[in-house]
Amino acid sequence: MDYKLRQDNLRAHLAAARVDALLVTHLPNIRYLCGFSGSAGVLLVEEAGSVLFTDFRYDTQAKEEVKSAKVVIGRKSASEAVSEFLAQRRKRTRQRIVGVEAEHLTLAEKKRLAGLLPAGVRLKGTPPIVERLRMIKDGEEVGLIRKAVQLGAALFDRALEVMRKGVTEVEVAAEMELVARRSGAEEMSFPTIIAAGPRSALPHGRASRQSIPPAGFVVCDFGVILRGYCSDQTRTVWVGSVSAEARQVYQSVQRAQQAAIDAVRPGIRAGEVDEAARKVLRKAGLARYFTHSTGHGVGLEIHEAPRVAAAQKEILKPGMVITIEPGVYFPGKWGVRIEDMVVVTPDGSEVLTPTGKDFIVV
Amino acid sequence: MDYKLRQDNLRAHLAAARVDALLVTHLPNIRYLCGFSGSAGVLLVEEAGSVLFTDFRYDTQAKEEVKSAKVVIGRKSASEAVSEFLAQRRKRTRQRIVGVEAEHLTLAEKKRLAGLLPAGVRLKGTPPIVERLRMIKDGEEVGLIRKAVQLGAALFDRALEVMRKGVTEVEVAAEMELVARRSGAEEMSFPTIIAAGPRSALPHGRASRQSIPPAGFVVCDFGVILRGYCSDQTRTVWVGSVSAEARQVYQSVQRAQQAAIDAVRPGIRAGEVDEAARKVLRKAGLARYFTHSTGHGVGLEIHEAPRVAAAQKEILKPGMVITIEPGVYFPGKWGVRIEDMVVVTPDGSEVLTPTGKDFIVV
Repeated sequence: MDYKLRQDNLRAHLAAARVDALLVTHLPNIRYLCGFSGSAGVLLVEEAGSVLFTDFRYDTQAKEEVKSAKVVIGRKSASEAVSEFLAQRRKRTRQRIVGVEAEHLTLAEKKRLAGLLPAGVRLKGTPPIVERLRMIKDGEEVGLIRKAVQLGAALFDRALEVMRKGVTEVEVAAEMELVARRSGAEEMSFPTIIAAGPRSALPHGRASRQSIPPAGFVVCDFGVILRGYCSDQTRTVWVGSVSAEARQVYQSVQRAQQAAIDAVRPGIRAGEVDEAARKVLRKAGLARYFTHSTGHGVGLEIHEAPRVAAAQKEILKPGMVITIEPGVYFPGKWGVRIEDMVVVTPDGSEVLTPTGKDFIVV
Repeated sequence: MDYKLRQDNLRAHLAAARVDALLVTHLPNIRYLCGFSGSAGVLLVEEAGSVLFTDFRYDTQAKEEVKSAKVVIGRKSASEAVSEFLAQRRKRTRQRIVGVEAEHLTLAEKKRLAGLLPAGVRLKGTPPIVERLRMIKDGEEVGLIRKAVQLGAALFDRALEVMRKGVTEVEVAAEMELVARRSGAEEMSFPTIIAAGPRSALPHGRASRQSIPPAGFVVCDFGVILRGYCSDQTRTVWVGSVSAEARQVYQSVQRAQQAAIDAVRPGIRAGEVDEAARKVLRKAGLARYFTHSTGHGVGLEIHEAPRVAAAQKEILKPGMVITIEPGVYFPGKWGVRIEDMVVVTPDGSEVLTPTGKDFIVV
């Protein structure tokens, strides 16, 4: 990973944010900028260089992982170490404005930090600068995401092996998660959704102890984290004897999903991709059952920028990785969702998810 | 759950915090005060009553779950609904100060909220009032925690069945998590730690693909969430032929853990409980290998108040539920930790964790 380049890209935005330095506290942002994956740390990015502050628990790990930044181990805590560091700096430089991440720092954290800082250092909330940099994945990141997506896809193959009438949703989820663990995933990127029968109408129906009924849709939405990067995939299958109506609804969602994928290319607005899916469902008379947005960015976090939702003006650029996941939900009856991960390429897009999308009857 | 009593207890603290109302945004606090378990909501607690704001996704769920509060479904979002509500109120009452949870609200969230509010309504950061109420569990909560702890303990029984030389750590974790799922746990309360051989020296050694070696300690630290409440338990077992040194180290930790449990009673400071464990390890010459604190509160969150750490002045009271989990770690060699959950009773304490703690050789 070219951490130095990432930090330099961040530095190029400091002046516009009217800060002399940025104190990065959001852990995925810290990992992105210097490689540190521990659960307690603060990264100070200044013009002259960067420093990762953490505590004694992460001494070895920080020294192994951190690139393009000095490592300072705080005796008490990372923020106390930051304050001492800035107090030293203060002696040598003029009054300084240190940016903090307004979307992540709490009121109490800011107050504690401000109380520790030397006179002459002022904190200033900044917009999500690092998150905007993270929207565009570099080649190495796309490679890691591809591997996470491929590992994730293997979970669905396992789901198909074990899924049948009478098996509980949690048994299916457990079998999938065992594949993830055995394949080296660090963890699931979110609680696995296995939602069968009427529960398929719940967009977030986490696997429950309910058994898979004799007939109905089963929505499977799942993802893994591999070397820090998330996968996210949904497939919906039918169990039992199938009706023409079920096939029709499935095919409408499949067409809507394909239309949105076909719309993905550099220069298009995220809202237009959302509209491409919505238009197909509108023609099929299903638009009002599509109650969520079409997708979201994925990377070091399972939900990150850009949002692929109605009226979103963000313009897609090569290197963005997003989900395309339209769904329709008839409360009390059934639901269908199909989701792939897609990377924006210079020429258009590439679907990363390798799994087929034809109607499957189990 | 007596949600009305909990809200009234909170109301009794509003004047001291110099606010007319509290806008609760931390989800475990919302669940504690009115029963809502969704992932998007804001609870406004005023003298005259309470209102839970959420969005259309949680319409049915909010109406089913929420007690002692009116439910308002925002068309766009919970915070936009709060603002409209306060604007209506504004017409009828004097200038108001609305408290916000300083430990949870981010700078950006506060700014957005302030931008939506009507003139004459001012936001003021408040200390963790609800967290302090949550420290003392009522009888129903202790009952739920007891059930979560009992379910959690069954996972260790399963671990003992599958643990042996050559099995990977993740296989052991997967088998334990399958028991959790089958028994109705909503999810694990944290990533399961199975740390074998030299990895047992890592206090947070999540289950990896490493196999259990022919001889060494295996630290198992795990917990479930059942009906919202967390369990947390650690047992350390020995695999293979055992040395006198391993037995001695284990027994020192066991004695330290028992000493801390014996110290738990109403009126004692949390820091004294920590010292009780540390003192035993000091006498055994092991104090410097005990690198973390003795314990923490557990309830709707896996880590909550009080902290059971050196110099903590919090006085224990009946109804507090804490972990007692001393451990010693020899980097590159081995580690041992033993952890129970304990409830403070009027007379002393009760250990909730049913699992034995004698030295186990697998």
